[in-house]
Amino acid sequence: MISLNDVYHIVAAIIPLYVAMILAYVSVKWLKLFNRDQCSGINKFVAKFSIPLLSFQVISKSDPFKMNLKLIGADVLQKLIALIMVAIITKVRSNGHLNWIITGISLSTLPNTLIVGIPLLKAIYGDEAHVLLAQIIALQSLIWYNLLLFLFELSTASEAHTIEAQGDPEVRQEAQEIDEREGTKSRTPKRRRLIIILLTVGKKLLMNPNFHATVAGIAWASISFGCNVKLPKVVENSITILSDGGLGMAMFSLGLFMASQASIVACGTRLALLAMFLKFIVGPAIMAAPSIAIGLKSVPFKIAVIQAALPQGIVPFVFAKEYNVHPDILSTGYYDCCLFLQDNRWLACGIANCGGVLFVVGIIGNAQKAGSEGIICMYVCMYVYGL
Amino acid sequence: MISLNDVYHIVAAIIPLYVAMILAYVSVKWLKLFNRDQCSGINKFVAKFSIPLLSFQVISKSDPFKMNLKLIGADVLQKLIALIMVAIITKVRSNGHLNWIITGISLSTLPNTLIVGIPLLKAIYGDEAHVLLAQIIALQSLIWYNLLLFLFELSTASEAHTIEAQGDPEVRQEAQEIDEREGTKSRTPKRRRLIIILLTVGKKLLMNPNFHATVAGIAWASISFGCNVKLPKVVENSITILSDGGLGMAMFSLGLFMASQASIVACGTRLALLAMFLKFIVGPAIMAAPSIAIGLKSVPFKIAVIQAALPQGIVPFVFAKEYNVHPDILSTGYYDCCLFLQDNRWLACGIANCGGVLFVVGIIGNAQKAGSEGIICMYVCMYVYGL
Repeated sequence: MISLNDVYHIVAAIIPLYVAMILAYVSVKWLKLFNRDQCSGINKFVAKFSIPLLSFQVISKSDPFKMNLKLIGADVLQKLIALIMVAIITKVRSNGHLNWIITGISLSTLPNTLIVGIPLLKAIYGDEAHVLLAQIIALQSLIWYNLLLFLFELSTASEAHTIEAQGDPEVRQEAQEIDEREGTKSRTPKRRRLIIILLTVGKKLLMNPNFHATVAGIAWASISFGCNVKLPKVVENSITILSDGGLGMAMFSLGLFMASQASIVACGTRLALLAMFLKFIVGPAIMAAPSIAIGLKSVPFKIAVIQAALPQGIVPFVFAKEYNVHPDILSTGYYDCCLFLQDNRWLACGIANCGGVLFVVGIIGNAQKAGSEGIICMYVCMYVYGL
Repeated sequence: MISLNDVYHIVAAIIPLYVAMILAYVSVKWLKLFNRDQCSGINKFVAKFSIPLLSFQVISKSDPFKMNLKLIGADVLQKLIALIMVAIITKVRSNGHLNWIITGISLSTLPNTLIVGIPLLKAIYGDEAHVLLAQIIALQSLIWYNLLLFLFELSTASEAHTIEAQGDPEVRQEAQEIDEREGTKSRTPKRRRLIIILLTVGKKLLMNPNFHATVAGIAWASISFGCNVKLPKVVENSITILSDGGLGMAMFSLGLFMASQASIVACGTRLALLAMFLKFIVGPAIMAAPSIAIGLKSVPFKIAVIQAALPQGIVPFVFAKEYNVHPDILSTGYYDCCLFLQDNRWLACGIANCGGVLFVVGIIGNAQKAGSEGIICMYVCMYVYGL
């Protein structure tokens, strides 16, 4: 059993995140402190500075020569299972609309490991959790977010139907040049379209500070752990001075978005419940299955499964907002914090969950409805995991 | 002599502040990342959340039962000397215009103890500096900033000439009610005007989060050190999650303002030189004189004099912007970082100064002019303090 002291540590790590979020919510909704454009200034600061610097800090401190290959394997398999599963379901239900595939994958496989995961799991499992989570974060930033970006661009392109209307003129010209260079004038429109999309995604990535931060983080981690050198203190301090505030600012920015919506459960109860099901039942389940198959055991196994049940990651949410693909559904993934309960840690998670639900949904509007959703989900989780 | 290691610590503490500022400057001036309204959103976040929480954190950790009375005495005397001196000079030069008195006092007596002072002086003198600076910060927030606010309101009132046009209707009515209650219908207009101004200042203070943070900080420090209790970890973490970023965000916000100006030395060279003279020569001199008279010695004396030569405080600058009273002059007080040199610490301060000048003025535009100003000022300081 987990001790009451541990529980206190977890609560002390999680509640401050929600305090920052509620502060933002209150300052917009009730105090009218920030207007729409001012909010977007703060959001931009978080997306362009806080989060990338925080990513760099976490990734650059994780030893790339001591990666847990089983964990990485399980993580990759989880994403594959989710993709196949979501693709089949959306094919049956909505003619395989790409936007639903993207949202399904985001919800079931891209949790908030950086902002919520590290303080929560570090409080439960100590530094081991930090090491393992840094690996998952590196994979998220390097591979999954870029694939997600690709899917978003693909969706935009499919929706526009005609290729010519797609991509900026520069990209179109580049695609044409590639065509001409290779002398393949007879290339099918489908292939040309793919090249345009790939080039657009490439451009987007090169402008994405989080991508740069991840690449720089991995590069520096390789040098740092390979040659046993450390960043000079001046550089280290220059990064921490802005990344230190990253955690609080990110949660603050979430609160600003929540306040901009007409209702806390912006997508309606039915979709919020579906989102919760994907996040707290499907996500951890499709992480647990390959983890068991690969042979991940004890603490790394527990960390892998719990992290899969964390609230929605901030980057997929930012993308969803940018491309306007169901940001209202993804936002519900935030306040349903840590509903997933795991073996004998149930008390800790239960309290963390109560913290999340009580502090966010319970206090701010929609109290009874969202509260009861949380409790139902909690019991379903407890039943599924045989507590 | 100060060791090279100490110098490195100081540089490592100061440069990151300027990195944050330059990042903001670059992102507005060159990358066009934030528009005017978005900048004001970030500024508001800094003014309403980061700075007050940072103030609370610093003040609540300083023991009010171990105040250095000599230091406080010298601080009070410095302000008195500055007020008398600036009042006499402006009387002679510009018919005693209140705006010039305010700017003169801000420049000569209200340095950036919280953001620049603590990392810099802690790097030189260790924890003792932190204890003493926290006392100066508490005085600044509790007394000097409120007096400054009073002067700003007084200036606004004088400028409007007629009493009736002044203050909001509510305040006017309150003043009238006080008049009627005391039955002094024959009261002179001057006195009634004073009551209106006092009520307006009172209202402004009650809406100022920094004032609340200071009062709460002193209250909690009294309880905490008096009864030997500590803040619960959850509360502590909830504060630090947002205040941690305060330092970086405040410098970022300064960079945003600098970028909004047409030129780095927005007020022109003549006024910038005058501002530097007030900040780096007059400020420390009128702190040193009463400190010697009162008998402040060794490290506390050095800390008192050095902190008086720090760049301009952020709160007076925010006020100046709000009331539109020479913000362009006050903003120059930032990048002239640490030009003041003190006894055998000259190498350390010299390097910190080079850091400030090189990283801020040297790199970004107006290079030669501002650079030479900095060097002249440096030599004047060295001469004045007999280095």
